[in-house]
Amino acid sequence: MRVLVDGAADVGLDPLDRGLQYGDGLFETVAWRRGAPRLAEYHLERMATGCDRLGIPRPPERALLAEMAEVAGAGDATVKVVVTRGSGPRGYRPPRAPSPRRIVAGFEATAAPAGPWQARLCATRLGRNPSLAGLKHLNRLEQVLARAEWDDPGIHEGLMLDDVGRVVCGTQSNLFVAAGGRLVTPRLDECGVAGVMRRAVLAWARACGLDAAEAHVTVDDLRAADEVFVTSALIVARRLSSIDGSPLAGGVLHEEFIAWLEAH
Amino acid sequence: MRVLVDGAADVGLDPLDRGLQYGDGLFETVAWRRGAPRLAEYHLERMATGCDRLGIPRPPERALLAEMAEVAGAGDATVKVVVTRGSGPRGYRPPRAPSPRRIVAGFEATAAPAGPWQARLCATRLGRNPSLAGLKHLNRLEQVLARAEWDDPGIHEGLMLDDVGRVVCGTQSNLFVAAGGRLVTPRLDECGVAGVMRRAVLAWARACGLDAAEAHVTVDDLRAADEVFVTSALIVARRLSSIDGSPLAGGVLHEEFIAWLEAH
Repeated sequence: MRVLVDGAADVGLDPLDRGLQYGDGLFETVAWRRGAPRLAEYHLERMATGCDRLGIPRPPERALLAEMAEVAGAGDATVKVVVTRGSGPRGYRPPRAPSPRRIVAGFEATAAPAGPWQARLCATRLGRNPSLAGLKHLNRLEQVLARAEWDDPGIHEGLMLDDVGRVVCGTQSNLFVAAGGRLVTPRLDECGVAGVMRRAVLAWARACGLDAAEAHVTVDDLRAADEVFVTSALIVARRLSSIDGSPLAGGVLHEEFIAWLEAH
Repeated sequence: MRVLVDGAADVGLDPLDRGLQYGDGLFETVAWRRGAPRLAEYHLERMATGCDRLGIPRPPERALLAEMAEVAGAGDATVKVVVTRGSGPRGYRPPRAPSPRRIVAGFEATAAPAGPWQARLCATRLGRNPSLAGLKHLNRLEQVLARAEWDDPGIHEGLMLDDVGRVVCGTQSNLFVAAGGRLVTPRLDECGVAGVMRRAVLAWARACGLDAAEAHVTVDDLRAADEVFVTSALIVARRLSSIDGSPLAGGVLHEEFIAWLEAH
């Protein structure tokens, strides 16, 4: 494991960094495969969009990519990039001319369990806030509390509902539901993270003429579906075979997507 | 300004600390007056309750108090205490045996502008999540975005509504509304931070036989009130004289509370 802070190794972070003080920043978790980042453009675009929405100056892409390559090396790795608004005076008010900070860490690539996955419904809900919806920001206590709900290694993911009971995502994945020839993923205009692999699935669906849409999704929709799968930058896609022990129907759309992604 | 990380000066923070990675921690902002912390017990109790709710082992109180004294010195200061779940492997899942980390920083005490204060209504809303409501946790992007909404130094505080339009708090204060002989502060069971000075006002109200309650509060309640004031550990209390330029009625409850607090 290797960490760079603004390009420098073996340095600590300023404890007054706004990323720590307020979660005032964003992150990306990138799958590095055979010496190259998977879906690099989507990651960089999401980081740039997130910075624009939070009013954080965009970090230089060239530095980000060089630092990612430095910590990842020539093989496979998991690279985590954190960008914060940097340090500043005490108080919520953002500095007028912030100096964003980059933290780039390379971890050993770990193989996610093979599918299908068993899922559970988390008791911890997602609050809704359109100002933050879709962003991969650093305010992630809801996911931490949700992931703390179970220890059973046979459960691979927890699904999270918003406060009015709609299914939004997994603790660390996005969700797709196939039913009646249509592929649906939950809308993310009120909460949730707009995953890069979710974006890739939607692009694939368009490319192969599938009817794909963002819509509200309920637990009943999952139980009635022909196929349910989750996606993320690291796992690509895994079909869910059950929720809280109740079996779900099984299809092959996730496998077709994985094949498409590997061919591109 | 002086910062201690787990009691040590001049050290950087582990960039993989979960406080940075996920906002997985809590904080307190303490008014240090004439060499002593104001409302120390309330701060320590809130930190302990917050740790219990997030499943973070409580930091040793004696170490916290000693470190606060070390950074604050013998006079006046503002002391910020951050407690995180510490470092751990990548991923939301909390480590089984976390080693919490303390970051204690002492800042020069700054005098808040004298009252009355002019306020505005923020466009940024608070999402509701009972799992996190009341906690002074490190997920504070909503407050950052709200405080970024205005530059006018004549506006002293911004009031925040939740997503269904109830008034909850200021960006860095709690809110009290006096009307018809009754003192009301917004309920914090769905969002907002349960301030130590808010707790002191409620204790004072009980001590002097005032009818005080936590209830839902609307913008119309503020406009119809006999007196509206905000409270925080640092400012104690400030009456609001206007919201978005519309004048509010003025009373003296906040002054009576300040006098009571200073006598205790």
